[in-house]
Amino acid sequence: MKRIAVDMDGVLADVYSQFIKYHERDFGDYLKPEDLIGRSELEVFPNGRNYVTSKGFFRNAPVIAESQRVVSGLNREYDLFIVSAATEFPQSLTEKQYWLNEHFPFIHWRQMVFCGSKEIIDASLMIDDHFKNLDKFKGDTILFTQPHNLLTADTRHRRVHSWSDIEQILL
Amino acid sequence: MKRIAVDMDGVLADVYSQFIKYHERDFGDYLKPEDLIGRSELEVFPNGRNYVTSKGFFRNAPVIAESQRVVSGLNREYDLFIVSAATEFPQSLTEKQYWLNEHFPFIHWRQMVFCGSKEIIDASLMIDDHFKNLDKFKGDTILFTQPHNLLTADTRHRRVHSWSDIEQILL
Repeated sequence: MKRIAVDMDGVLADVYSQFIKYHERDFGDYLKPEDLIGRSELEVFPNGRNYVTSKGFFRNAPVIAESQRVVSGLNREYDLFIVSAATEFPQSLTEKQYWLNEHFPFIHWRQMVFCGSKEIIDASLMIDDHFKNLDKFKGDTILFTQPHNLLTADTRHRRVHSWSDIEQILL
Repeated sequence: MKRIAVDMDGVLADVYSQFIKYHERDFGDYLKPEDLIGRSELEVFPNGRNYVTSKGFFRNAPVIAESQRVVSGLNREYDLFIVSAATEFPQSLTEKQYWLNEHFPFIHWRQMVFCGSKEIIDASLMIDDHFKNLDKFKGDTILFTQPHNLLTADTRHRRVHSWSDIEQILL
């Protein structure tokens, strides 16, 4: 069965709305997705590193639209793994798994990977919003649109704008 | 550079002495390594599942003899990853990374993987004490001796009894 590695932050977990919420709390400044285009979180949010290391940032992230329904479908058809680059922030690890357990209860703990570099991941297809993960991956790739990746040419990866797009491709 | 995936529990972290210590605390019964031969932890320790889900079990595990010195050497010569099956116990994830950060400070967070199944790991060599991880691995394998694996024939994997053995093979 074809193995798919699905990213978490920016693909399942809407961490960008968390950044925007925390930033508004700190600066009274509500940033729109357009303000984030082509820029990394740590460029946009001066306190970004404090946010991601604060308790609850990952645990309380909203779920990206339609991801639960489509991932549930993928889970029936493919050898699915959720692969999150998480070890940069050790305290996030347990939070991230509890988040997955709550929002994606059909994903077994055997299907979860929390790592640093994704170079060690062996799969046929990777779905991710970061070029740094996709560029080094040997298999097929799907780039999940987020404001930060909008300005980079994506000729090497198939770009999708939603989980409905992924559903149409894979299911 | 050849990539090596090194297991944590039973290879770097001496979780067996933790089981023995907790069991003695609960039952006043000190088990020796010989008592563990050929049996899984959950067979030997009736409260084993409580131990591994209790705070501090992984965080306070002793370090296996000579592992720091030899892993430090491997880290200079190979593309090294520490790969721990950890997601069965979500609260262990952060503890395990803090343990690595303390005892193996030369291991970068990019080199850490906390997963469920190791089938998704792409490496040339895996060092592990569990057949369930080694048997499905496509690359070379080294079986690290622990009492639980002593009675199983290890014809498919090269058995070592210490980190000095690994040093002689790889360095």
